[in-house]
Amino acid sequence: MNVDGKSYRTVWADAAGSGNCVHIIDQRKLPFSFEIEKLTSVRDVVIAIADMHVRGAGCIGVTAGYGMWLASRESEGDREKLQLLAEALVATRPTAGNLSWAVDRQLQAIEGKPVAEWSNVTLREADKIADEDAEWCLSIGRHGLNLIEEIAEKKPGNEPVNVLTHCNAGWLAFVDWGSATAPIYAAHRAGIPIHVWVDETRPRNQGARLTAWELANEGVPHTVIVDNAGGHLMQRGMVDLVITGTDRTTYTGDVANKIGTYLKALAAKDNNVPFYVALPSSTFDWKTRDGIGEIPIEQRGGEEVSHLEGRLASGELAEVDVLNPGSSVANYAFDVTPARLVTGLITERGICVASEEGVTSLFPRKQDRPDP
Amino acid sequence: MNVDGKSYRTVWADAAGSGNCVHIIDQRKLPFSFEIEKLTSVRDVVIAIADMHVRGAGCIGVTAGYGMWLASRESEGDREKLQLLAEALVATRPTAGNLSWAVDRQLQAIEGKPVAEWSNVTLREADKIADEDAEWCLSIGRHGLNLIEEIAEKKPGNEPVNVLTHCNAGWLAFVDWGSATAPIYAAHRAGIPIHVWVDETRPRNQGARLTAWELANEGVPHTVIVDNAGGHLMQRGMVDLVITGTDRTTYTGDVANKIGTYLKALAAKDNNVPFYVALPSSTFDWKTRDGIGEIPIEQRGGEEVSHLEGRLASGELAEVDVLNPGSSVANYAFDVTPARLVTGLITERGICVASEEGVTSLFPRKQDRPDP
Repeated sequence: MNVDGKSYRTVWADAAGSGNCVHIIDQRKLPFSFEIEKLTSVRDVVIAIADMHVRGAGCIGVTAGYGMWLASRESEGDREKLQLLAEALVATRPTAGNLSWAVDRQLQAIEGKPVAEWSNVTLREADKIADEDAEWCLSIGRHGLNLIEEIAEKKPGNEPVNVLTHCNAGWLAFVDWGSATAPIYAAHRAGIPIHVWVDETRPRNQGARLTAWELANEGVPHTVIVDNAGGHLMQRGMVDLVITGTDRTTYTGDVANKIGTYLKALAAKDNNVPFYVALPSSTFDWKTRDGIGEIPIEQRGGEEVSHLEGRLASGELAEVDVLNPGSSVANYAFDVTPARLVTGLITERGICVASEEGVTSLFPRKQDRPDP
Repeated sequence: MNVDGKSYRTVWADAAGSGNCVHIIDQRKLPFSFEIEKLTSVRDVVIAIADMHVRGAGCIGVTAGYGMWLASRESEGDREKLQLLAEALVATRPTAGNLSWAVDRQLQAIEGKPVAEWSNVTLREADKIADEDAEWCLSIGRHGLNLIEEIAEKKPGNEPVNVLTHCNAGWLAFVDWGSATAPIYAAHRAGIPIHVWVDETRPRNQGARLTAWELANEGVPHTVIVDNAGGHLMQRGMVDLVITGTDRTTYTGDVANKIGTYLKALAAKDNNVPFYVALPSSTFDWKTRDGIGEIPIEQRGGEEVSHLEGRLASGELAEVDVLNPGSSVANYAFDVTPARLVTGLITERGICVASEEGVTSLFPRKQDRPDP
């Protein structure tokens, strides 16, 4: 997508000449500065993933894919060394499913291949992982565009379609387009008037920092609001559609996503606002039937709640502690929105009802559908 | 209530000797420093109210009451001058009902009184307004305590009753005890194990700053959470009771309160958690039937969303801008929770159902009940 008018992906390789490095957008620096980081070793990639220079399932997976290209070069034909580097990559974010999936895919790709081909094979495979990710998101955008078009047709005059989103399920979380944002970008590029309510998304403020930055760079009209405001906006008819991403959606349609998603789904239901969740179908969890009962919710450090980074009046960045000294903090990272509150799931395979029947209908071939 | 082990009100007069001043707790400085400010003129009081050194309906009303005592002295028997000072006080926060009510009450109190008595009459009346406010809150606490006791009795072992609250409807918003916090303080002082989930309350963070500070000073166990977290906690059975305050409650039971209250009420309903609103019965709005349709929602400056004050690592206070540069912001201050989501209203007159019938039942004498 566009940054200052120039098109970027979140991760890409430079294999020309003596390059042999991976470039990423350092997302920790956004929105205050746009910095491209050059990763020249597996160690660099490990740090970039572990310290969240990159984040988001798709983006992490692709970065790990390219990390395996660097690993294939560093290991110089030593299978054992390659395995150790692969393990180091997987260990960076143990709960990120896409990460181990991308690493495994690379190990399979070089299986039986001569050492001389490792670098080329893993580079091609990493590009393929990245391209697939981008294509899935593009396809989510196409399906979601239909929903937005339907709403736009019913709007009087040239009034914009108002979409509310939570957290960042944007292109920064993938390679391009994003999941929840893909229909928004598709509509905007198709000339449909659209306006996005961007939830700030406490505690890490991915909405105010990342989604707002993405939308601004693509020229999509948007307004940042506190997470508390969405219910009021829906009550007053100021939201036509909610689209969020998901970290994990059960095959029964329960949606684990950033903390606070459930509250927005409740408000959408109460005000007859359609609530959609956008995801590449690789995000489905085929093992879990009851999202609320079975999905463990990560608790993260309290300093994410108590401390915020921002710009001082001088322009310098600084971190401030905003909490009453001596008070305790809890930081639950995700919640689960039950399927009954979800109008539909937008995937690269099409849109389905959030139910076992709906999800299964997207996978007509039994072999694509792991046994629950 | 207690601050560092010493008992305080939010506002009090010093009329001893040559004192003749009003003391307030400067709430802008909390929680980082506890500063008592001395107001010696009506001008000081005007600044204190307008610049939010004091906030909260009860606290503002009482401060204005004491402001009228200072006004009665400054006007030196000049009725016209007194009227101008009264108008200056009312103009500080035009939408604060308690403010004009307290000022009018003082003007009535001196009606027909000799000038020599103005100071004594207005001081007595201001003390009376303050005492009434404190008594109402104490009484809210007594009624709310019954609810908490009932829950505590059903808890196994010595498990604490978990109460969730939003914003600050604490003693800082009144003179003593608070509204939503009164039952909590009553239970804590009665030895009932209690734990409070404190919503941060973006954008002004009154939960993380003020409610957390109050509870810490009273020794009430509490945990600050982001506003996004409450739904998840209720889903997992970690909240026994929600109590919030209100800025204005219609005689039909619709509750206008800090933005985000509605989302918590939806989550409480979805999880069968009782949702109570605590208020002195003077807060009832007898003119408005349909809260959602008729109550105008104030929009405040965007810098409340984009900028946060906190402590730097050095200990100094600083304000940081946390928003993507160039993005727009909207800041809706309140929302309306429909009566159907409210389990009950806790007032100094008792607890009632949130409905016209329920509210009216608290006012059996027709003369206490303005015609809707």
